[in-house]
Amino acid sequence: MSRPVVAALGGGHGLAASLAALRFVTDEITAIVTVADNGGSSGRLRGEFGVLPPGDLRMALSALCEETEWGHTWRDVLQHRFAGDGPLGGHALGNLLIVALWELHEDPVAGLELVGRLLNARGRVLPMAAVPLDIEADVMGAHPEQPDVVTLVRGQAQVATTKGQVRELRLLPASPPAYPESIAAIRAADWVVLGPGSWFTSVMPHLLVPELAEALSVTRARRLLVLNLEMVTNETAGFSAIHHVESFAAHAPGIRLDAVLADPSVVDDEQALAAACRAVGAELHIHRVAIATSPTQHDRLRLAAALQDVLGSGRRP
Amino acid sequence: MSRPVVAALGGGHGLAASLAALRFVTDEITAIVTVADNGGSSGRLRGEFGVLPPGDLRMALSALCEETEWGHTWRDVLQHRFAGDGPLGGHALGNLLIVALWELHEDPVAGLELVGRLLNARGRVLPMAAVPLDIEADVMGAHPEQPDVVTLVRGQAQVATTKGQVRELRLLPASPPAYPESIAAIRAADWVVLGPGSWFTSVMPHLLVPELAEALSVTRARRLLVLNLEMVTNETAGFSAIHHVESFAAHAPGIRLDAVLADPSVVDDEQALAAACRAVGAELHIHRVAIATSPTQHDRLRLAAALQDVLGSGRRP
Repeated sequence: MSRPVVAALGGGHGLAASLAALRFVTDEITAIVTVADNGGSSGRLRGEFGVLPPGDLRMALSALCEETEWGHTWRDVLQHRFAGDGPLGGHALGNLLIVALWELHEDPVAGLELVGRLLNARGRVLPMAAVPLDIEADVMGAHPEQPDVVTLVRGQAQVATTKGQVRELRLLPASPPAYPESIAAIRAADWVVLGPGSWFTSVMPHLLVPELAEALSVTRARRLLVLNLEMVTNETAGFSAIHHVESFAAHAPGIRLDAVLADPSVVDDEQALAAACRAVGAELHIHRVAIATSPTQHDRLRLAAALQDVLGSGRRP
Repeated sequence: MSRPVVAALGGGHGLAASLAALRFVTDEITAIVTVADNGGSSGRLRGEFGVLPPGDLRMALSALCEETEWGHTWRDVLQHRFAGDGPLGGHALGNLLIVALWELHEDPVAGLELVGRLLNARGRVLPMAAVPLDIEADVMGAHPEQPDVVTLVRGQAQVATTKGQVRELRLLPASPPAYPESIAAIRAADWVVLGPGSWFTSVMPHLLVPELAEALSVTRARRLLVLNLEMVTNETAGFSAIHHVESFAAHAPGIRLDAVLADPSVVDDEQALAAACRAVGAELHIHRVAIATSPTQHDRLRLAAALQDVLGSGRRP
């Protein structure tokens, strides 16, 4: 296959990492991005304008900016946060640009399309759902002094940083509508890439949007899960690579995987991990994708090389 | 002369009008822009960040955006103001973009240079002074019930809309420093274009910056004054075209003009106006430059055609 058509699902820094790598592999990228952020600049903009939280969309657009000095300058400007704690303090310029386009174009998809064109960004960035979402979870041991008690934790940031074990994850409102463009992109893709990213707040939420889950189960695209480099973030404390694959299967029983990409640093028992992957239909690919000096961050060129190998490994049936 | 090198001085809608026309005549444009706005979005940004007021700079950049759909979209986005009266309500997106670049680059000139490059704008936009300014004026009859009393009016918007007669105009701080890039642009120009614009708050303030006044008096460039279409705005109530030319001479006794451009609608007595122009060294050019259906606004193509004639009429001695 020459240049695969890719739909990349996720949010935050994880999705930005996969996009920054995918852009070296193909021009045909549609990012489908979580819209459940409730804190910081995004939370304030939801409050002031009732819009989708733009933060994860901005990070995705930044990752897709041109590979030129001009594009890198735009990337830095989009990510720039105003100083101080005044009315603008903490707002990312890119968030404000997105909201401005949403005021000029009522359809958020059309607005994002224009932002992408203004920045000459590769690919396309779409919101995971057509309404602003909140995430809540039943968490066991959210309070360390009560390790056996299950409590309700609400908010993307709160769930992402809980010290307890997430038992059940929900979106509010439940079963939100997706954009037809997202469904079409998943169905038209050669590959769907899930992860890396905060497991319960960036990777799993897409599976709770019924139309996206349906599209993921019926698409002829192959499905790749990119495992995280850090297995010990709060929300997935105690999760091994095998747990992640099993957790995916448990949350999405109807969705088979075709490939799992893992850095050697997270592979304790290659045979056992390969078996867990086979159980969900996937082949295990082990590639060194971390930055040598910063083993918890993906190196975009190494990840690009690995994705090129994996995405070139199978044809759409 | 093929493509004249132009320095355009002014602020607000007037400068935007001359730039929107000049861009058809030459690529070599340096806009030198008032930085005395104290109200609205600019005033709030001065208050929050201590920066130069970006509003007039934004309008100039918008006017210099590309003549393409892409450029027109950027122009509209820069000018877009957020809705509502929340923390962002009323802020123009372009003002926020400029302030973001000023946070990333301490030198305001370097920051504006980058904004221009990000937008692929023609020419260059420079602040009139290196410090935020305020405008104040001694105004006779500011209060209509006391027509003979001279009072102090402070603030760009307040001076621009006073119903009295401006007797003396001052900048605060007095004698502010200019950027060397502005001085160099005036000295290197083939033509310096002054006006149109609010007379006391967009056109005259440059003459109160000593280094700009000095550069205007010693430059080998020819100097063109573009007269306003509306002679009866508040601040210049009772001012005729002749009064404007005489007012210029009174405020800038050391600066000769080479040309004055007037729309026929503001010429009552052509002989008398031509004589007033000759008294300051200038040839009078009368061209229809107003929008046919909106006689108080410059038509950018008519103004472009007129500027092409005038700027082509004389060689730099």
